[in-house]
Amino acid sequence: MQEETKITPWEVTSTSGIDYLKLIKQFGCQPIDGALIRRFEQVTKVKAHPWLRRGIFFSHKDLDLILDAFERGEEIYLYTGRGPSSESLHLGHMIPFMFTKYLQDAFDAIVVIQMTDDEKYYFKDSLTLDEANRLTKQNAKDIIACGFNPQKTWIFSNLETVGGALYRNIVLVMKHTSGNMIHGIYGLDLNNSIGQLSWPCFQAAPAFSTSFTNIFHGDHIQCLVPMAIDQYPYFRMAREIAQKIGCKKPATIQSRFLPSLEHAHDKASSTGQKEVIFMNDTKESVAKKIREKAFSGGGMTKQEHQEKGANLTVDVPYHYLLYFLDDDSELKTIACEYQAGRMMTSEVKKRATEVIWGVLQEHQTARLLITDETVQLFMDPHRKFDRSRHPKESTPGELEGQHLGFHFDPYFRSK
Amino acid sequence: MQEETKITPWEVTSTSGIDYLKLIKQFGCQPIDGALIRRFEQVTKVKAHPWLRRGIFFSHKDLDLILDAFERGEEIYLYTGRGPSSESLHLGHMIPFMFTKYLQDAFDAIVVIQMTDDEKYYFKDSLTLDEANRLTKQNAKDIIACGFNPQKTWIFSNLETVGGALYRNIVLVMKHTSGNMIHGIYGLDLNNSIGQLSWPCFQAAPAFSTSFTNIFHGDHIQCLVPMAIDQYPYFRMAREIAQKIGCKKPATIQSRFLPSLEHAHDKASSTGQKEVIFMNDTKESVAKKIREKAFSGGGMTKQEHQEKGANLTVDVPYHYLLYFLDDDSELKTIACEYQAGRMMTSEVKKRATEVIWGVLQEHQTARLLITDETVQLFMDPHRKFDRSRHPKESTPGELEGQHLGFHFDPYFRSK
Repeated sequence: MQEETKITPWEVTSTSGIDYLKLIKQFGCQPIDGALIRRFEQVTKVKAHPWLRRGIFFSHKDLDLILDAFERGEEIYLYTGRGPSSESLHLGHMIPFMFTKYLQDAFDAIVVIQMTDDEKYYFKDSLTLDEANRLTKQNAKDIIACGFNPQKTWIFSNLETVGGALYRNIVLVMKHTSGNMIHGIYGLDLNNSIGQLSWPCFQAAPAFSTSFTNIFHGDHIQCLVPMAIDQYPYFRMAREIAQKIGCKKPATIQSRFLPSLEHAHDKASSTGQKEVIFMNDTKESVAKKIREKAFSGGGMTKQEHQEKGANLTVDVPYHYLLYFLDDDSELKTIACEYQAGRMMTSEVKKRATEVIWGVLQEHQTARLLITDETVQLFMDPHRKFDRSRHPKESTPGELEGQHLGFHFDPYFRSK
Repeated sequence: MQEETKITPWEVTSTSGIDYLKLIKQFGCQPIDGALIRRFEQVTKVKAHPWLRRGIFFSHKDLDLILDAFERGEEIYLYTGRGPSSESLHLGHMIPFMFTKYLQDAFDAIVVIQMTDDEKYYFKDSLTLDEANRLTKQNAKDIIACGFNPQKTWIFSNLETVGGALYRNIVLVMKHTSGNMIHGIYGLDLNNSIGQLSWPCFQAAPAFSTSFTNIFHGDHIQCLVPMAIDQYPYFRMAREIAQKIGCKKPATIQSRFLPSLEHAHDKASSTGQKEVIFMNDTKESVAKKIREKAFSGGGMTKQEHQEKGANLTVDVPYHYLLYFLDDDSELKTIACEYQAGRMMTSEVKKRATEVIWGVLQEHQTARLLITDETVQLFMDPHRKFDRSRHPKESTPGELEGQHLGFHFDPYFRSK
């Protein structure tokens, strides 16, 4: 059987696990190594996020240039987005937002968040345009609950916002994008709708600061786009077009996929058949999903487990701890004990449940405070945005640790 | 040699004259006959325009339904547009605007005029986006000079306007338009830019009144689109999509092309090599162009002309009189005398020059009064539009005449 991996913004399939190293070579991206993470900490004066340290955000394009610009005191901005297709976001959806919030604090930067109600209408047949727009407002609450700075964050619905300077940049992008480019990058062709064929241009345009005259007043500010790796094709395209339309190339930083419960090398998804953890799940529901659905790398019997230990590379509860357990030393202990067969699957699942429920509980508490008025505030294009930057004090003592980035061994194996 | 006619919104070529009857059959349109013209006069209480009486606006789709609706006191609106590609409009460009102004008075209706700066940027490589937008304002002056009612007319630039309710309808259209539809109707394919492939959706959307909440506040009002026949494919597409998105099918009324000076069966064009009469030409320039360039159907020598007479079907000066000489009896006299060889080509050219210069002079005088502020007023989306309708008094005495429409013989030949 031939090994096959297919990655587009709409489809992630792989017959034998996703080879991320191969993927970033194919995309022409760079891995994030320890040196880059150290430089990130030196320049921002902020300790590297566990997802940077643990190789979850593992790849980038021009992040080094962003750091150079930041060091020179230049302004940068962050751009991410969400296709509103479900009532609540799931844990995998939250990764880029949680990380963007972290980057907002680290860079003290403006964040723009595109809610792609138009895209979801094109790509999801059961969805009406009004429903997509309604979900936009609901999903915005989950996003705001991450703790974005209201003075520095604009959430916008395409349906409500496309026009003016943003439409002008979309027109520039649409002229410089051929049908063949779209076909080559996304596999779309004349059998697709014009909405689908033109969609990538609408996603690329916000990576150019001149789209947001309400914030940047026409200034050319470089953009950094945090995303899961499947979204990179949009920005590869944006980078190709940038020069042709006199804009700065957007920089990017890409994460791996949060695994689905059933398979450590699949992508979690709310649209497929797979079981996922939603941000509004109850504690009992989280416990049940992990207990019953999360694939275990432990032995089939207690005896087998004690003899051979657990295979962490396929163990989903451990992967979830890798994402959400902040404490490096506890994570290492679990990895070693579990691999050695001294810790049981049930214990790891219990700890994963606690940690995930902790994330959900914090989120649910924050979300309860988000009213329709809060959403309205975050989506108001006409308010004054705070572009000022307040340099952080150096706190070198806190910035120690393993910074091995892409080459970090998430399973703490002895070499 | 095989006879071939190619009609798309960007290209009109024909090896042996355009067969309009064949074309409207192919498009699925109806010819405008005397009965429909009579009904137009009865319902609107306005004498039929010479271009209706003389078969220049010769074809329609659902014009009868528009008349029925108008008779019931229902509101309708008119939609036309312009791709701003030249500093001044030429005589051929003015036909739909002059006729739309006439229809505005006849129906006492709202007119929306789309200035397609985005389209011209996609399809004309030498044009920058800023230049297309600048030409929009210049061309708007020529359009306003036709005498549109400022309380009932909105001229809008796509670059400045796409967004809000208009973008919402564009999204609806884009979802329901496949790449194959675009290929089938316009011949575009993946070698074209996404701007070009998606463009027809942007031209179709204004044919739905819900695009203009600033005027119609969400009401579903049927649209009538006056146009040259090459624009019909856009509205054939709009009609197909209308039902799917819950909108009323737009009605249309189509004209023949104003002939080029060199050939009575070509289309006048400002972009090709052909000589055309621009609205800002001087009297001397008009005289010179007609004298030197206008193809004559008269005899090669005075003797030959007196013996055989003129062939009006290929005579361009006569065709221009058919368009612009209002007086039916003078037109008939010229047709008969010229065909009989009693009137010379030089005399017909002299009369055509006078008549065309009369049209240009009136236009130039009106245009002088159009300031940048007038343009700003016509393009202001936020003012109050006058949707009220004031029924005209019946004046049956003025409504007599030949109303043979499509079957009218423009050469007054005896049968």
